[in-house]
Parts: sequence; structure tokens; C-alpha cells
Amino acid sequence: RLLSSEKVSDKNHSLPKPCWGKDMRLLFDQFMKKCEDGSWIHLPSYEYIATQRSQDFPTFIHASELINKEKLSQGRLFTKSFEDGLGFEYVMFYNDAEKRIVCVFQGGPHLQGMPGFFHGGAIATMIDATVGMNAIVSGGIVMTANLNINFKRPIPLCSIVLINSQLDKIEGRKLLVSCNVQSVDEKILYTEATSLFVKLNPEKEFD
Amino acid sequence: RLLSSEKVSDKNHSLPKPCWGKDMRLLFDQFMKKCEDGSWIHLPSYEYIATQRSQDFPTFIHASELINKEKLSQGRLFTKSFEDGLGFEYVMFYNDAEKRIVCVFQGGPHLQGMPGFFHGGAIATMIDATVGMNAIVSGGIVMTANLNINFKRPIPLCSIVLINSQLDKIEGRKLLVSCNVQSVDEKILYTEATSLFVKLNPEKEFD
Repeated sequence: RLLSSEKVSDKNHSLPKPCWGKDMRLLFDQFMKKCEDGSWIHLPSYEYIATQRSQDFPTFIHASELINKEKLSQGRLFTKSFEDGLGFEYVMFYNDAEKRIVCVFQGGPHLQGMPGFFHGGAIATMIDATVGMNAIVSGGIVMTANLNINFKRPIPLCSIVLINSQLDKIEGRKLLVSCNVQSVDEKILYTEATSLFVKLNPEKEFD
Repeated sequence: RLLSSEKVSDKNHSLPKPCWGKDMRLLFDQFMKKCEDGSWIHLPSYEYIATQRSQDFPTFIHASELINKEKLSQGRLFTKSFEDGLGFEYVMFYNDAEKRIVCVFQGGPHLQGMPGFFHGGAIATMIDATVGMNAIVSGGIVMTANLNINFKRPIPLCSIVLINSQLDKIEGRKLLVSCNVQSVDEKILYTEATSLFVKLNPEKEFD
């Protein structure tokens, strides 16, 4: 089973690091506690899953061959391309019965937009990663078709926040997932979003 | 005048670099040619404008004081926090009569999502930066309130693409801006988006 903890290898980036803040560690410990009875699952990093799954999709590799091979070999997952603590630090937990994911996200100083606050694109990235993971665990290989984000309040730079994602509906190849971004004490609602994912057809090529 | 070329200092990152690909340089030259009669303006980098404008908004600085000072001093604009060629390379041109911006964007290998393609969050980031700039040149200090993105086709990693942004409407403090992302030859429509920006009230504090 893809999500079983036995499959978590040393490639897993979703384990505590020295750069994690106090609230990040506290929340990690709280959710790990919830994992003990099996109701929640601690997800390995997205990069790990992507690598595993892409082996099953040779058509992606084929499409990628059109791209400069040298550049492609430098390819790094966007959310993992920062030094520890400067970019995206996050850990996701999945509740299968409720079809939802909670992502604990600590954004670093290199994610700045307006001085002192996160860039809207950085928030969009973490939302896409979280709702995308919720779609992947339910639908396998999927692609984001729509992302509709309401930014209600700017998020101070270097904050730790909770991203609560929920699978709302599956209609054929379409998966609808919504989420919100809240402060750790759940008193501030920063952002709300809805998204649409489409399961990919392995026969179809993009290029 | 904020946008006059005299104001472009050595902080301006939107000038050709060795890492720019052939199409990026060709498009840069074509648009610089269009700037000669004054119909188009070569925009300095977003970071530069943000720095200039933030001096007028002491309330932002006040809000930022709640954040760890040391971390804040490491703050870097998200789109400028990668080494040359690995992340976001872009240059924007503004047409005042038509209230539109064209952004020539070359994404590097560290913006990967699905293997061989850009991360949806990286595309969202570049869209936010472009439509945001279109709102800024029309409305001053603004904040993204909504971003609604339709991803029609995945964009191969390391592509150079055109982001065409258009101010559609101003209603009081609201600005509506739409955009699309196309291949350099304009034959492939990758992404479409609409956005809503709100002019900030300097009196209002977030925290």
C-alpha cells in the first residue's frame, strides 16, 4: 500500500528538522499521536510519492524527452528546491475515513511578496500541493485543472499555518477538493480555495 | 514618474542575463523595439518597485514588527530567491494605452511539479506577479483578493512562455485583471486566469 508507513524511505522530507519552529513540532507531535490508532496517516513527502508513481507512466518520460536533457536532469520539485528553513517546510497528515488532509506549513523568508508577508504565489503553491495530494491519494495520477483562491488576509512572513483540505466529490475523472488556510490557533482564516483535478489518461500525450 | 526609464537603477533584474534562452532574448529585443515610440514601457523588476512603494506605507512595517526581526531581515522576494536560471527569469512590458502587460517568462528546472513539467504553484506565482503588476501600475498598492486559474495544458519544464495580462475593469477599490499563458509562437494556450485586486487602505492594519 502506497501510504503505509513501511514505504517511508530515507527520502522522506516530512520529518522534524532543526529549522522547524516550536508550533510546527507541537503540531507534528499531536498528529503523530493521532496516527497511533490508524485514523490518521503521516504522509511521506510529495517528492517521494511523485517519484514512485511516475515510474508507472512512461508517457510522461516520453513527453519530457522533448526538453533539453541537461536542464531536465537538474529538475527539482518546486517545493523542495530551497535550503532548509528558507522556503517550504511542511508535513501532511491524511484521514482516509474523512478523505481529508491537514498540512502543517512553515514558510521561510524567501517566500516574501509584499514586505513582511507571504507572496500570493507561495500560498497558491502550498495550496496546490495540499489539495493535489488529497486528489492523488483518492485518484492516483491527477493534474490540476482549476484553482480558485480567495485571499482574505495577508499571512505574515515566517508564519506557521494549517491547511485543511477536503475531498468534496468525485465525478468520473474529475475530483473536487476544497481547503482553507488558518492560523495555528484556528482563530484567523487567511485563505479559502476550491480546486478541480482531472485523472490523467496514460494513453494521452501532451506533446 | 515611477515607470520612467530614468528610475531604473542597478537593482533592476529585468535585463538580459547569460542564462536567458534564445527565444527570451529575441522577444526582449522585439519588445525593446516597441518601446522606442513610447507605446510600450520596459518595466523594472517587481522587487525594485515594491521597495520604492513600501516606504510610503509605514503600517506594513508596523505589522511586520510582530514577526521575528532576524527572520524578516532574510526576507527575499519569492520570484527572486533562486540562482540565475534555476527559478523565475522574466521581463515585463507595459502598454499604458491598452492597460496591458506582457511578461516573457523562462522557468528554470527548480520549478518542477509533475516530472518534466512546471509545478502549478510556479505558474500561479508568475501569473500573480504579472496580473499584480498590472494592478499596481493602475491602482498603486494592491493586494490579491482572488486568483482563479484554469490549467488547460501542462507546461514543459524550462519552457519560455508569454503571459498576456489585461486590466478589464476598475470598480471603486477593486481592480479586475485577466491573463493567459501561451507558447512563444502563440499556438498553444496553456493557462487562463482571472484575478481581483483590492487597493489597500493605508489606515488599516492587519495585525
